[in-house]
Amino acid sequence: MTIELVIIGDEILSGRTVDANLAWFAPWLTKRGLQLDYVTIVHDSKKDILTALETAWQRSDVVITSGGIGPTLDDVTKSVLAEFAQKKIVVNQSAQKIVENNYARINRPWTQETNSYHMIPEDFIATDNPTGLAPGLVWFENGKALMAAPGVPREFAIMVEQVFFPLLAQNDFSIAGDGAQIAIRTYGVPEEKIFGELTPMLWQELERFGKVSSLPHVTGVDIIISLTEKRNLEELCEQVKNLHALVPLKPHIWQWGTLSLEEYILQKARALGVKIACAESCTGGLVASRFTDIAGSSDVFLGSAVTYANAAKEKILSVKSSTLEKFGAVSEAVALEMAIGAKEIYNADFTVSFSGIAGPTGGSVEKPVGLVCQALVAKDLKLSRSLQFKGDRLKLKERFAMSGMFWLLEQLIRK
Amino acid sequence: MTIELVIIGDEILSGRTVDANLAWFAPWLTKRGLQLDYVTIVHDSKKDILTALETAWQRSDVVITSGGIGPTLDDVTKSVLAEFAQKKIVVNQSAQKIVENNYARINRPWTQETNSYHMIPEDFIATDNPTGLAPGLVWFENGKALMAAPGVPREFAIMVEQVFFPLLAQNDFSIAGDGAQIAIRTYGVPEEKIFGELTPMLWQELERFGKVSSLPHVTGVDIIISLTEKRNLEELCEQVKNLHALVPLKPHIWQWGTLSLEEYILQKARALGVKIACAESCTGGLVASRFTDIAGSSDVFLGSAVTYANAAKEKILSVKSSTLEKFGAVSEAVALEMAIGAKEIYNADFTVSFSGIAGPTGGSVEKPVGLVCQALVAKDLKLSRSLQFKGDRLKLKERFAMSGMFWLLEQLIRK
Repeated sequence: MTIELVIIGDEILSGRTVDANLAWFAPWLTKRGLQLDYVTIVHDSKKDILTALETAWQRSDVVITSGGIGPTLDDVTKSVLAEFAQKKIVVNQSAQKIVENNYARINRPWTQETNSYHMIPEDFIATDNPTGLAPGLVWFENGKALMAAPGVPREFAIMVEQVFFPLLAQNDFSIAGDGAQIAIRTYGVPEEKIFGELTPMLWQELERFGKVSSLPHVTGVDIIISLTEKRNLEELCEQVKNLHALVPLKPHIWQWGTLSLEEYILQKARALGVKIACAESCTGGLVASRFTDIAGSSDVFLGSAVTYANAAKEKILSVKSSTLEKFGAVSEAVALEMAIGAKEIYNADFTVSFSGIAGPTGGSVEKPVGLVCQALVAKDLKLSRSLQFKGDRLKLKERFAMSGMFWLLEQLIRK
Repeated sequence: MTIELVIIGDEILSGRTVDANLAWFAPWLTKRGLQLDYVTIVHDSKKDILTALETAWQRSDVVITSGGIGPTLDDVTKSVLAEFAQKKIVVNQSAQKIVENNYARINRPWTQETNSYHMIPEDFIATDNPTGLAPGLVWFENGKALMAAPGVPREFAIMVEQVFFPLLAQNDFSIAGDGAQIAIRTYGVPEEKIFGELTPMLWQELERFGKVSSLPHVTGVDIIISLTEKRNLEELCEQVKNLHALVPLKPHIWQWGTLSLEEYILQKARALGVKIACAESCTGGLVASRFTDIAGSSDVFLGSAVTYANAAKEKILSVKSSTLEKFGAVSEAVALEMAIGAKEIYNADFTVSFSGIAGPTGGSVEKPVGLVCQALVAKDLKLSRSLQFKGDRLKLKERFAMSGMFWLLEQLIRK
């Protein structure tokens, strides 16, 4: 099955927005054992969209568009879809019902004067939009599917995952890979080292089980096997786990599954009945924000003292001014006092602290940009360490945060 | 001049890499007053690349490809270029010289056995690659240009900027433009309300000045005018500011410019010489993380007490247990004590606090999911308020954070 994404939107071509829908859709397909074949990005112009649709329709079985189904004047997709399919735009009862429901969900009135979301090209299907207002539009013709989703990243992702793909399955498109997969989640070792040095035979060995993909993230490399044989998932998983070629990789595997790192840590901590808190300088609240993204985190995560200023480190976390003077804010000694202080004020079982230099300025020869000092404190445990990373400010913040979270996970697993 | 980017590479379609060349090229063109018209992304397959080139060549004057000119097996671009232009691949003296120079730069030997970088399609021009090894390839034909750059982001950017565009200028392509734009940044009012109710004539009025786009973000709606007339930017901006149709929108405009909200707040605070701190419960560090994403934030932003647990609110921020008992954690009274506590411990001039229910559980009839209580405290200023938002957990966190940051901005502007 050939899949094409047509992204409609001036904002990406003008560089005002970085694409998020391709960045989400491509790995999402790969994880399901499917493949994105083409992407076309065009302006909000009737002519350009029409040309893109014609090209896409020739070479692809499923064409998904993102963008251009909102209410403003530059949202021209709907009329182009009608022109492309040679249909009139008509009032559609089911579309109207969806729109009424969506507006009711946010307690706002909708009438036919509000907008024309209830009008869609004839013979198209209006689909639900679980997190937005405008319905999605779908047209099945000659064994192909044309599907129009909103451009807002969250609306796009949820509509594709919860509405479009189930609809494709109902209409006998082979969207399996039905998601029977084994995920080997690794950290702390780059992709080329895994397959080049550590275990050069692993890829071939894994290919006996299905299609293998390798997805490098900031967190680490995920190796995904989309199983050819769908039965006996547990047995297959056991077989993979026992592969001889996997042995050298084992110290780097942190999860056989699909939970996010923060979710996985919270789950481990919950099982152990321990509470977590942080003290953050260079990560500036990122670690706390990641934990609190997870619903139900409050039973494990107590909070984080974001102490960017030195005075705040002293006053809130009782870091000694002599330690700051002697070793500097970015030091293992200060990180340790921060973690101890956070354990005290939050009454936490485990605390992790972060003090580093995210740049682009503020580095020196001894303490360059990319240096982070971390400490981890629990009952009978006082650890500190220094790590050096590369990257720009945002990447460094993320690497500082992730490395500390993996460290915390290691300690939780050891308990 | 119509410009198209053809990105060649499995790694983007599979989601293994997030595109970086489009993300760099699009805003780079916009800043020069040029426009990227089309992007096509295809696999490293001869057939797909050929089709993409044919489509691109029909509709665009300048076609730039990224990827596929290195030595590995999947780098097929060069032979596709030859096939597309119907040329033989031949030894090119100038290419050989470039390759020899590039290898000399990194002190490595190059012979004709090392690779075939010295062979290029007949009538093509080999260009310098200031930061890599393989030369770029350029073909001028019928007033159009086909230009092939490496996929490595740094090599791509430098080749396009330092080699391709000067070469286009020498060959009389009109690559000048000045990218003059006016950005009207609004908040607190949805897109359809702006153009539907508030000021239905605004879009048409703005179109007198150029192409209008509307970009809704979680922060608000940005209205961008790409000016037709490039002269007198200041005068045109004055004219736009004085439009009658703009009057109803004015209370919602927070910036005539392109800074992010956090950057804009930091700039205002810096100009006033005031320091900022936060106390976060439901936003869980998101506000702090946003501020600390900005390089140089440390001179204004002191930190944030992320107090998810009630005990932490009491211990760190001195929220009274009686206040927590009487009003509950999500209350204006508690938010106020949090902000006062944060002002005290951080010794800040302005503090904002957030206590709310991000869900999906934890809501009640009186205090539903989406409720946030905020307080804002400065010298002689003690404000608190409650707001109700819709959305899932991540959207609510972001809306809670953004609304509080806009509130802070309003107070800073009033000073």
